[in-house]
Amino acid sequence: MRNSARSKVDPFIVMDVMEAARRAEAAGRHIIHMEVGQPGTPAPRGARDALGRALGTDAMGYTVALGLPELRSRIARLYAEWYGLDLNPDRVVITPGSSGAFILAFTALFDAGDRVGIGAPGYPSYRQILRALDLVPVDIETAAENRLQPVASDLSGRDLRGLLVASPANPTGTMLDRTALARLIDATAEQGASFISDEIYHGIEYEAKAVSALEISDDCYVINSFSKYFSMTGWRIGWMVVPEDHVRSVERLAQNLFICPPHASQIAALTAMDCAPELEANMAVYRRNRALMLDGLPRAGFDRIAPPDGAFYIYADVRHLTSDSRALAAEILEHAGVAVTPGLDFDPARGAGTLRFSYARATADIEEGLARLARFMAARSAVG
Amino acid sequence: MRNSARSKVDPFIVMDVMEAARRAEAAGRHIIHMEVGQPGTPAPRGARDALGRALGTDAMGYTVALGLPELRSRIARLYAEWYGLDLNPDRVVITPGSSGAFILAFTALFDAGDRVGIGAPGYPSYRQILRALDLVPVDIETAAENRLQPVASDLSGRDLRGLLVASPANPTGTMLDRTALARLIDATAEQGASFISDEIYHGIEYEAKAVSALEISDDCYVINSFSKYFSMTGWRIGWMVVPEDHVRSVERLAQNLFICPPHASQIAALTAMDCAPELEANMAVYRRNRALMLDGLPRAGFDRIAPPDGAFYIYADVRHLTSDSRALAAEILEHAGVAVTPGLDFDPARGAGTLRFSYARATADIEEGLARLARFMAARSAVG
Repeated sequence: MRNSARSKVDPFIVMDVMEAARRAEAAGRHIIHMEVGQPGTPAPRGARDALGRALGTDAMGYTVALGLPELRSRIARLYAEWYGLDLNPDRVVITPGSSGAFILAFTALFDAGDRVGIGAPGYPSYRQILRALDLVPVDIETAAENRLQPVASDLSGRDLRGLLVASPANPTGTMLDRTALARLIDATAEQGASFISDEIYHGIEYEAKAVSALEISDDCYVINSFSKYFSMTGWRIGWMVVPEDHVRSVERLAQNLFICPPHASQIAALTAMDCAPELEANMAVYRRNRALMLDGLPRAGFDRIAPPDGAFYIYADVRHLTSDSRALAAEILEHAGVAVTPGLDFDPARGAGTLRFSYARATADIEEGLARLARFMAARSAVG
Repeated sequence: MRNSARSKVDPFIVMDVMEAARRAEAAGRHIIHMEVGQPGTPAPRGARDALGRALGTDAMGYTVALGLPELRSRIARLYAEWYGLDLNPDRVVITPGSSGAFILAFTALFDAGDRVGIGAPGYPSYRQILRALDLVPVDIETAAENRLQPVASDLSGRDLRGLLVASPANPTGTMLDRTALARLIDATAEQGASFISDEIYHGIEYEAKAVSALEISDDCYVINSFSKYFSMTGWRIGWMVVPEDHVRSVERLAQNLFICPPHASQIAALTAMDCAPELEANMAVYRRNRALMLDGLPRAGFDRIAPPDGAFYIYADVRHLTSDSRALAAEILEHAGVAVTPGLDFDPARGAGTLRFSYARATADIEEGLARLARFMAARSAVG
């Protein structure tokens, strides 16, 4: 048996880092993990308690494909709480993580060979999921002066059937403000293309609130997840908001592709939305970590960074230090005992000159990691 | 925004039955559910207890994409217990239900436009998932004398890139014996096509043990799930066994398409495999229900049935009663208060002459359902 052409998926460069870190730990070394893209905290206690109770009383068979009605309603209410929006719960589709939402959105909107624009740098799986569905990812190389986000003028002449943007973005943490987002939505509509807004880092924002595409237009797909702000990565539970006239076709796709999202995760997610104190305590950690990073990284020598608007990443330009971010990441792991992500996963063309630092873990780890990075860089420049 | 061509998925006919049943129940009627394709039992108590303990101690972040190593090893051991096979755990891929396994298998093996053979009647989502991935489902109309399973001679001249079979099958419960399965595997290989074996009803078998494709060849994909025998439908957890030289590409697809299977479900599934007494108690119920059905359905007038080898369905030829199984199912719901599935979802060409009866629920429900069916049919033939 032979594999399909579309299964030829690029490996994640960061996997080499993670495997090297695992080997180092197995050999007894202590490694600080600044490569991870997930909170170190578990799901909120209230959410876990709710599931614990349900384990004794609920058979947890299949739910309907669109998800538990009370969960869809509660998410609609979240749009009132977060954005002041009046959202019809019928438009909310519960998905197996944002991963499941991407599969649903791409199959609902695009046919084999269609071209879909994504920003570079960006979340690497966008490109790979598109390819696995026989679609054509079109990298839009973003500019530093646009804070590494696509702008409306980037779209012309690209023959796109869709545009996918993320705000706050991974790996940069930068956001699209209302004006920039509205211009992108308009420019996409003018091309007759579909607009998909990845909002999975909403709630993790520092200076200003993130703007949802739904504040601007109902004619888009919005994807979100319980993974980040709600600290539920391993639960594989997310959601998507679609235009009213797309609900039926998305429902049929979801019935066939997934049957339903994981029932236990739906129960936990429902209660997670009522756990504000614990979630805000997590946010206080991210805020503290961000301040430490914005102070410590430049002092260590990683001074070509922009303060992130949201998420828990800092994307550093390291071209003054290396032309091979993968080698630099290996060097940092080897000599500093800090795992970081080379930019190549996010930006195949330019990522050899960038690193992503995550500050999602405990503050003590961030402090120790920054101290190690400072020592490493001091020694490196002394040698250099 | 417009929908893609591939999102034009057929609706499930059974959804009309289920919605009518829901309305009847909302109006105060009591309905016996013989349309459902899932156990009425929860996950084994040991599995739920294991998760309950983990909720307090485990952050349950992402697992690696292929799943928890201990779960993969335990599944490999299951192949020793069930089939006497020595299976390399590296070949076991944990998936978000068998649904996730189908998506992985189809993208790993086939490119847009490829033709994949499926038996008719068969699980309706095969056809729809294939279409959603821009593949071409090729219905193989099976014959009653082959117990509604495809045979090797059905493959010639069809230009297939793959063949997907299920044993025990939904909706018929019939199995492929070792000889028939081996012939199909050989005939598929001769065409240069890939063989996929859906074994999600393994463990639920009555007269003889189901044969795994892995007992015959390592050059195939085998898909299984915790949904049926292990009674964990809503948990969305399953697995796939692939040839060794396919593991890496399937891993990369899984990393991108799903990140990982739901962590909580993996913890529960691991312990479910050690809950034999409870699972065998479920099996005793299915055995009793099957005996009741094989006695009661013919007595009610549904006498064109074959004893199922496995699963918990009986597929009845009702051409002597109707030329419109959808209308007959609606009539049975209305007058007998029993929900059953018209065959059209399983066999678009011939399903107007068939009904599927599920006996997955409690024995008391089966007894009451059979009594209602007998009264309904007696009244119907009196009128007719």
